[in-house]
Amino acid sequence: MSISRGILWVTSGPSGAGKSTLLGRVLALYPGTLFSVSATTRPPRPGETDGVEYYFIDREKFEKMIEEKKFLEWAKVHDNYYGTPLAPVEEQLAKGKDVILDIDVQGALQVKEKEHPDAVFVFIAPPGIDTLRKRLEERGTEDEEKMAGRLRTARWELTKVGEYEYVVVNDDLETAVLDLSAIFRAEKCRVRRMKDMDFVKEA
Amino acid sequence: MSISRGILWVTSGPSGAGKSTLLGRVLALYPGTLFSVSATTRPPRPGETDGVEYYFIDREKFEKMIEEKKFLEWAKVHDNYYGTPLAPVEEQLAKGKDVILDIDVQGALQVKEKEHPDAVFVFIAPPGIDTLRKRLEERGTEDEEKMAGRLRTARWELTKVGEYEYVVVNDDLETAVLDLSAIFRAEKCRVRRMKDMDFVKEA
Repeated sequence: MSISRGILWVTSGPSGAGKSTLLGRVLALYPGTLFSVSATTRPPRPGETDGVEYYFIDREKFEKMIEEKKFLEWAKVHDNYYGTPLAPVEEQLAKGKDVILDIDVQGALQVKEKEHPDAVFVFIAPPGIDTLRKRLEERGTEDEEKMAGRLRTARWELTKVGEYEYVVVNDDLETAVLDLSAIFRAEKCRVRRMKDMDFVKEA
Repeated sequence: MSISRGILWVTSGPSGAGKSTLLGRVLALYPGTLFSVSATTRPPRPGETDGVEYYFIDREKFEKMIEEKKFLEWAKVHDNYYGTPLAPVEEQLAKGKDVILDIDVQGALQVKEKEHPDAVFVFIAPPGIDTLRKRLEERGTEDEEKMAGRLRTARWELTKVGEYEYVVVNDDLETAVLDLSAIFRAEKCRVRRMKDMDFVKEA
């Protein structure tokens, strides 16, 4: 009996949509699922460990990996490179493990262009731009200029929702957890993903 | 604000797959959802009421409705006509209500050919033909000839699973209820189904 390949969950959403909290909650329900660790050229922040939050690599190595097509997707954001190394993702999917990419819209569109057969695209949206602004203000980590930049990016990202397959509107967290969990469970019942249809073979 | 259209759930599965029990359980969780009532030319069984289990109509009327394209799908099974009248289904979908069709594979393939924009196809499968045979035997309502017929039909139906979008394998009922409920919930998060994306319009 061959193992069905894992699902490649491609998730995006503006900063302040509550994506990390939501993904954390849903992952706790699906313990076999793995977060993909991105590579970046930005310097580690205090408390960040190489291979945990990111693979911290230098610009030269990153650009060499781009040339060698070793990224599933990559982007330059705020003068730094970010990217998803292809090899570890493929390895997990082949083992039947689901992998979550938490990447920006630019990156997601690259994955989409490649028509990765295992990919499912989920956008995590705030209920509206006003809510997003409030959440970012409450977080209080951004100065005014950065805040304006984040909101500009968010507005652009929201125009790309139509490129995704699912959208989870994170208004009430508990509802959003139920929605995203349902999407995770439902995708496992997709006919096109079923390799071992015993009920067919036996018939 | 315009109302999003309802989902047209097209469900099929061999007799003995436990489809009725499963659908009943899931419907209880989604009280807004309606079962479509089929029309048939077969005579009512004791206890059946016109407009509840079926619309019982005569052959002449049925054939006239076929001519006038008033069926979403219809089929002739065991010398009787069965069909889904189009008008009540469209009316409910337009109101934003989900409608469930519990129809055979022939019928489902007809709906698929028409590329109904609201349709989602779910196959309810037994874990295997052996289980199906056991369940039918336990039910004890079929003589040997009818049983052989049912199993033959089931085998053919199982070869058509690939025409559906989802398959729920009804091995353990509780697991199947969770699977089907998840599919119902997940489909409501489909981007292509969202008309009122406030979070986009506002942005």
